[in-house]
Amino acid sequence: MLALVERLLVDFDARKPFALARAVSIVENQRPGVDDVLASMHPRLGRARRIGITGPPGAGKSTITNLLTREFRNSGLTVGIICVDPTSPFTGGALLGDRVRMESVALDEGVFIRSMATRGSLGGLASSTREVTDVLDGFGFDIILIETVGVGQSELDVARTADTTMVVLVPESGDSIQTLKAGVMEIADIFVVNKADRPGADRLRNDVELMLGLRRGSSYANMPAHHGIDLKRVMNPARAAREDAKLASPDVWTPPVLGSIAAKGEGIAGIRESLDKHFSYLEASGVLRERRRERTVERVIEVVEKRMHQRLLGDAETTTWIKGRVDELESGSVTPYVVADDLLRNFGHLVTGATT
Amino acid sequence: MLALVERLLVDFDARKPFALARAVSIVENQRPGVDDVLASMHPRLGRARRIGITGPPGAGKSTITNLLTREFRNSGLTVGIICVDPTSPFTGGALLGDRVRMESVALDEGVFIRSMATRGSLGGLASSTREVTDVLDGFGFDIILIETVGVGQSELDVARTADTTMVVLVPESGDSIQTLKAGVMEIADIFVVNKADRPGADRLRNDVELMLGLRRGSSYANMPAHHGIDLKRVMNPARAAREDAKLASPDVWTPPVLGSIAAKGEGIAGIRESLDKHFSYLEASGVLRERRRERTVERVIEVVEKRMHQRLLGDAETTTWIKGRVDELESGSVTPYVVADDLLRNFGHLVTGATT
Repeated sequence: MLALVERLLVDFDARKPFALARAVSIVENQRPGVDDVLASMHPRLGRARRIGITGPPGAGKSTITNLLTREFRNSGLTVGIICVDPTSPFTGGALLGDRVRMESVALDEGVFIRSMATRGSLGGLASSTREVTDVLDGFGFDIILIETVGVGQSELDVARTADTTMVVLVPESGDSIQTLKAGVMEIADIFVVNKADRPGADRLRNDVELMLGLRRGSSYANMPAHHGIDLKRVMNPARAAREDAKLASPDVWTPPVLGSIAAKGEGIAGIRESLDKHFSYLEASGVLRERRRERTVERVIEVVEKRMHQRLLGDAETTTWIKGRVDELESGSVTPYVVADDLLRNFGHLVTGATT
Repeated sequence: MLALVERLLVDFDARKPFALARAVSIVENQRPGVDDVLASMHPRLGRARRIGITGPPGAGKSTITNLLTREFRNSGLTVGIICVDPTSPFTGGALLGDRVRMESVALDEGVFIRSMATRGSLGGLASSTREVTDVLDGFGFDIILIETVGVGQSELDVARTADTTMVVLVPESGDSIQTLKAGVMEIADIFVVNKADRPGADRLRNDVELMLGLRRGSSYANMPAHHGIDLKRVMNPARAAREDAKLASPDVWTPPVLGSIAAKGEGIAGIRESLDKHFSYLEASGVLRERRRERTVERVIEVVEKRMHQRLLGDAETTTWIKGRVDELESGSVTPYVVADDLLRNFGHLVTGATT
């Protein structure tokens, strides 16, 4: 291990803030020592609750993140915040405003905020976000909020690295719930309809609930509550009761659809309560342990892929060999598949790491 | 080779449209036969000019794509269009309108349009876009337009797979050129300021030119043309002439900053002209050949990585072995790094593809 990293980890253990910031930077930028930092995090992982917050631009994610941070701090919990913004190349204005707003919590010693640079994140954004989250977890934060500012596939992938994923919507995010693609419905553990005082908010909540019902595939659950009357209860109370019992069991989680007016601070306590409930469900059902075991296996696979790449393609002899085949490839006399197979036949043994 | 794929490729060679559509689907969804389809494309590659069109939402990329398609068709060239939209999970409304507009060219037999689904694109969006582009190239299209609808890093990566990358901006895309991040400036071969009749368009063109000058690092080029007077020519005509000569040499390309009013069809001929000029530059300077050789090497590396993953991690014995280490990993007694190294030591030989 690099002496520098060794010293850094001593300071990290002493919970010195500069050591945390430096460790995060090493990991984020894949600088020398990154493997040592991550390896030393491993035995400390699993304390933090990882909460992903995603949704379209302007939905109020930053405000909610900010208020939730205060809520958790008031209970004496420490909070790490990771802001991921992959939508950056063309505009950056709104983001800046958000960061300024964040500063109201940034002066608190129990809070750490990091905006993730997304360019050049080796192995993908989701992977580097998880690595930074591991560092915050290893440092001992109780809560880690992962806010993804954009709206693309990579943000969904990022959200999926969390234990709990919250999707924030606003009435104006679309005329209809039809605009919510399947991916969003699949990953959401909690829905929040923010700006709940705006026209269309009730409709949006109903639509999301309807869609969740459809997804469960129950004919009763398909029916939305219209005008305050719950049709399924009226039509077959016994069946409704059976379904309620099933949904209340610790093995099933039904994503709640909450309302909030974050700009006025309304609804935050309810969100916090749902987050706590979801975490209890994750623990009681064994889903948390299962998700974390899966995450560990994914981590092994990531390391394997990184190592294979380094050992095989980082080798000077291999690089020269590939360059020697370019003329053939260019003429079309061999395909990349043939060359790849030849390469693996000749140099594949390098990935075993044997030094003989 | 699968008999089905073999028959498909016969129809593909006969230039049957359904065979093209099917080949694209096989590649896009990584269905069985994908490697055979791509391998058979390889010797046919290199005919098509690949043009990437990117920019912020609402800049008019679809309109420009549509008009450019007609422009190329009028010259008797066939056009393949790939629309990439990674910003899909939350909204899809605007996109639908674009697709409808596209239909005006879709009835033309010399035009093929494909919208890329972005979910589950193994190996990343840029890689699967390049693979679909290869199929269109192999089919014999003269021009391939790759339109990326979103604004994220993945769109920049997609644009980078083209021979020529065009960035479309509009006055309202930001108060100032400062919002254009470095990544955009690096990849653009041609800038288009669309909606050039709107307030701020001249300012935006000047700002982009200034930024390009700064990037070249010449003190003369730094100076924008104000009020129609080219200051650098006035101040030192001899030096300006030397710089002009250098810029006119076939080894240097200065991204032009064009104006257009796509909604009225204005400026499209100028864009076409610049695209042709850039292609001539690519050919004359040897940059085209160099870029294509690089692309071929990247392709080999992609295949190598895919093969390594399949051979090592697709193996049942390996999977069982990893699962057997999860308890140790969970307890923290070993790290993912140790397990990954053990795995490669024990199973790394599998990647060579030797069947003994």
